[in-house]
This record gives sequence, C-alpha cells and structure tokens, in this order.
Amino acid sequence: MSGGLDGFWAVVPAGGAGTRLWPLSRAGRPKFLLDLTGSGRSLIQATVDRVRSLADERVLVVTGAAHVEAVRAQLPTLGAGDVLAEPSPRDSMAAIAWAAAVIETRDAEAVIGSFAADHVIPDQAAFEAAVAEAVQVARRGEVVTIGIEPTHPATGFGYIQMGGPLAGAATARRVRQFVEKPDASRAAAYLATGEFRWNAGMFVVRASVLLDLLGRWHPALAIGARELAADPSRLPQVWPTLEKIAIDHAIAEPASDEGKVAVVPGDFTWDDIGDFTSLGELIDPEPAQQPVVLGERDLVTAVDASGLVIPRAGRTIALVGVDDIVVVDTPDALLVTTRSRAQEVKAIVDALKQSGRTDLV
Amino acid sequence: MSGGLDGFWAVVPAGGAGTRLWPLSRAGRPKFLLDLTGSGRSLIQATVDRVRSLADERVLVVTGAAHVEAVRAQLPTLGAGDVLAEPSPRDSMAAIAWAAAVIETRDAEAVIGSFAADHVIPDQAAFEAAVAEAVQVARRGEVVTIGIEPTHPATGFGYIQMGGPLAGAATARRVRQFVEKPDASRAAAYLATGEFRWNAGMFVVRASVLLDLLGRWHPALAIGARELAADPSRLPQVWPTLEKIAIDHAIAEPASDEGKVAVVPGDFTWDDIGDFTSLGELIDPEPAQQPVVLGERDLVTAVDASGLVIPRAGRTIALVGVDDIVVVDTPDALLVTTRSRAQEVKAIVDALKQSGRTDLV
Repeated sequence: MSGGLDGFWAVVPAGGAGTRLWPLSRAGRPKFLLDLTGSGRSLIQATVDRVRSLADERVLVVTGAAHVEAVRAQLPTLGAGDVLAEPSPRDSMAAIAWAAAVIETRDAEAVIGSFAADHVIPDQAAFEAAVAEAVQVARRGEVVTIGIEPTHPATGFGYIQMGGPLAGAATARRVRQFVEKPDASRAAAYLATGEFRWNAGMFVVRASVLLDLLGRWHPALAIGARELAADPSRLPQVWPTLEKIAIDHAIAEPASDEGKVAVVPGDFTWDDIGDFTSLGELIDPEPAQQPVVLGERDLVTAVDASGLVIPRAGRTIALVGVDDIVVVDTPDALLVTTRSRAQEVKAIVDALKQSGRTDLV
Repeated sequence: MSGGLDGFWAVVPAGGAGTRLWPLSRAGRPKFLLDLTGSGRSLIQATVDRVRSLADERVLVVTGAAHVEAVRAQLPTLGAGDVLAEPSPRDSMAAIAWAAAVIETRDAEAVIGSFAADHVIPDQAAFEAAVAEAVQVARRGEVVTIGIEPTHPATGFGYIQMGGPLAGAATARRVRQFVEKPDASRAAAYLATGEFRWNAGMFVVRASVLLDLLGRWHPALAIGARELAADPSRLPQVWPTLEKIAIDHAIAEPASDEGKVAVVPGDFTWDDIGDFTSLGELIDPEPAQQPVVLGERDLVTAVDASGLVIPRAGRTIALVGVDDIVVVDTPDALLVTTRSRAQEVKAIVDALKQSGRTDLV
C-alpha cells in the first residue's frame, strides 16, 4: 500500500549550474545540491521532502550523469530506478518526457507533476492544496500549471495570464496565455490587471496526455522518450538525437493556444533563488543594521555593516563600514559584491572561464 | 675599515603591532616584519637597508623579546650584540637610551640616529643627504631632528615649528617648538604658515649628549640605561624599573624649550603606513578604475570595482560593483572595508579580543 495522492507521481528535474550563485555553486556542485537557506537540507532534498507527502515513493529525479552520485548520496531513499541520468543537457522537455514515459510504463493512468529541484516554497500546506487541486483537474485530461501570486513586478520570470474559471474546479482557471519575461513597465502593467501570475515551471498532467500532445507537435521527441522507457540500453544512441526545447515552448504554449491548459492559483510564496540578491531577500526581507549570516554566525565580526555574509571556509570575516555588502567565502574562492549588483556575478564566471580557470567555475 | 659616515650609528626601534593593519599585522607578526609595499623586503629590512650606506655595520635594533628570532631571521647580517631584546614594552625613550648607552661604551664620540623600523621613505638619496647634514650638526652637540615636508594637512602626525637658520649649516634651522597631533583646521593653519614640518620621530644626536640631557630631566632612566650597557646581566632587574615615556616628551620638547634642538628639512616623501587608507595612497596615489593588488595580481578578478586588494591566502578573489573597497585575505581571517573607513579596523581587533579570539589578533 502506498500513500499520498492516488496515482500521482512527482518528477524532479535537477539541472542548471546556478552560475549567479558562484562561488557557492560550481559546475560540479550545482545550486540544487546546496543548502542555500540554512535549513540543514539542500534544495533538492527540500524539494523531494516537499513532494513526498503527495507522491510518497513515486518520485523520479532526472539529472546530469555527473551529478547522479551526489544526488543518490543526498537522497538515499530514492529507488535504484528512480534517478534518470542524462548523458548531456537537452533542456527540460527531453528530461520530463523521458520521466513521463518511464512512469507511463509503470502506471498507464499516472498523473505526473514536475517540480524543479532548486526552488524554495516555505508554505507546505498551501503547496499541497494547490497540487491536490491540479491533480484533480489533470485527471480530466487537462494540462495544469500552478500560477504563483506575484509579490513584485519581477522581470526575471515568465508570466501566466489567467482566463475564466474552470467548470467543476475549486479555484482553477483557464490559461489565456503564457508570456515571456517582461520589461519593468510591462511587468507593472501585468500586476495592475490582477490577471497575471508567475510561471514557476510547475506542470501537472497525465503522463499519457503529455506524451500524446508532444507526439502532435514534436513527434520525434515523444517517440524517443517512449523508446528510452521501453529499452534503457538505447540511451547512448537515442539521447543525443532528442530535440533541445523547453517544456514551455514544446507543450504549454501550443496547448494554451488550443485552450487546453488550466492554472491553479498557488497561495504560497515561491523563490527560485536566482542570485545572492534574491537569496538575501529570502532570508532577510527587511535588511537590518547587522549583516545576515548564512552559516556560522560566530565567524562574522561587523562594525557598522549590513548585507549578506556566507562563511563557508571556517575563517573569521570582519566587516567595517560597508553597507549592503555580499561576502561569500569558500576555501578556494572569495566573492565581494553588493546586494544590488549580485546578479552580475555571472561576469566573473565568464572571466574565469576565459582565463582558463575552469577549476574554479 | 668601515664605511658610511665616520662615527655614525643607526638605532632602529622595532615596536608597535600596527593594529589598524589587521589581519595582515598580528601581535605575533607586527607591521615592521611585513612586506607592505610589495618591494620584496619587510619594513624593517627596508629600514636597515636604508641606513646601511650611512652607518655600515653600526646598526642596532631594539625590539620585543618575542620578535628577536624573527628579526634575526630577516636580518642575518646583524651581529650577535646588535639586537637588543626588551623584556617588555617601555616606550621609545627606554629603548633608545639603552641603545645609546650600549653605543657609548663602544664609541664615546658616537653620533646616533634613531629611525623607526616601520616607516617608508622611497627617496634614498634625499634621505642620505638630510641625515648627513643632521650628523654634521649633531657633532656640534645639538639634538637634531629631520622635519618632513607635509604633503597634506595630516591630523595623524605631530608637527615641528621651524625657527631661524642655524649658523654654519647648509639647511638646518632652529626648532621653535614641537606640537602634538592637531585637528584639521589647525593642521591647515600650520601648513599655511610654511613653518611647520611633520615630526617623523627621527632624532640624530651624540649618544653622550642624549644620555646627559636625559640625566638632567629623567636621571633614573639615564642611570638605568648606562647600567644595562655596563652589565647586561642586570636586564631582568633594571628594565621593569625604567620610566615609560616617549623620546619626544623626555628629550625633544624640554630640549627645544631651551633652544637646543635643530631641524634639517627632509626633501623626501615619508609614510608610516598607519592603516590601509595610507597604504592604498602610498601604492596608488591616484585611485584607478581597477583595484590595486598588493600581491599576486592573477588571484584577483574584478568587474566594475576599485580599491585595494591584498591576497595573502592563495585564493581567487572576485569583486563585482564595489567602489573604493579594501579586501585583505589571509588564511585565517578576512577583512572587508573601504579606503575611507579603514582606520576603524582597530574596532575589529578590540571586538575579537573581547570575545576571547586572541588567536586572531
């Protein structure tokens, strides 16, 4: 006997390096493997914890071959067949389609929900309520997404425009359209309408519905995914031929154009911790007169300073007269920036790559 | 046969921790043992190099017992009897009087010049010219100081007010008075007169004249110093009884009140590198758009940053969008401050002491 929502499977795509979180995140130690919130759990551990009550043992992680060992070490309860190792990155559609096809062979009626391994959702109950409703709607054959209530006119996320209510659903509504990351004025206009939600890339849909829709718009991808599920030994031949495309472009947008996508409004805060600016805001929404320390507080001595300090090298860090500063201290690399400039850290990673310091990125 | 100026001996008092240069300087690794300018020589090595051409082998270093081993290691050419080890700090007069008394036993006619171990003087020729004239004047029985031409209205140094020219001397003048560190408006007023020079604590005087003057104003100190020179085994008994007083108060001020002090104007730049602000100005008087790196330049990657970076831990340091920043990276402690706030670093050392982290200070 198993628990959670009957026939519900969670897929956790674990990709992306999190370049703007360098030097915490590295190519070999990506963002999802890190405990960025000081909770004692890495982001992927927290993600799997979050979906367990809904999916119980029915959790599949899809990650790069290089990270399989680390993922298994962090998640020892995952079954042998529940970590799918991508030979190379081929964007989100290939990863999710492969997982959907594997799940389809285990349970032809399965509803899957896809949740990225590196997002933060503090309110577990609200998350569960939204997913439970999404699963109900998905059982009717809909593609369902969860739309996050915007807290500010963000320019770093895509948006979902909601249409009218969905018959027979508690809160779900039809999706009018998905829109790309807007500029600041457009984002503000979106918020003013009250019709727009952040697109957090959460999709809930029957595995067979997903693959059949994919079969209409990207038939080779659907065939390839089902071929991998039927015969895993074909991975080296099939994987490199799969189209590189995001699930938003491959499924969500064309399906919404046909009026086939529903959105459940999520009443919870959500963050993808894109950079140290958002990490700082997540940990300390109202910056104080003392720097926020993510780690051993005793290592930090501050005189007239504020910002975010992440001591990960065991060394004492002293700050004098610096406002809004970000200091990230690791054994082989140190970053000093500010909360307002932290999104530019990618330029450092690019510069290190150009100068051949691949050991550091 | 020996070289340099006949009968001239250099005394190098090596004391002071340089607290405002933490974490480079520590109680066990004071400022004078550090190469702060990137010259490849520590400040005390550079000081001894500087006086060698004038004093040849006639150089005595006076330092704390804890630092004797490090001083000998950095200065292997010093003779066995040329490093005097203070059992405890008793300010500059005791140190210089002891050295003067030792030198007096070796050469009754000796002229000594006292030069702190942690000052920087880039122009060797101008330094030598000033000292040579000071020695000439000192041979006549005068107490002679060297007055540094101020480059700005500094509030961190004492000043010397010059009087009329000294008969028979090339540039030397009578000292009208020594004045303590002024406030900013007073410092500006001093500079406007053209009569004031910085007091760099350089004194040139016959050893016997120094000790005889000391005998008038602080007889116990003079007696104690000569007792130590005659019988070094008395150090543990005599040293703790010596008065704690600076040479400025013990000799320079009372002697100038009697019109006995001359000043040779020094036509050279001089710095005592009191903090990272002055170190930054010394290395890079016109701050550039790129941070100045004191150490391995390859370790620093900067995007839109300026200031001073001192990488001493072998780690990569990345800066993004920080202006006028000071980053000092050592294996066990990191400092982040700004050029304008660097003089407050002492507060960190005080805080670390209070929290019992004496291992770090």
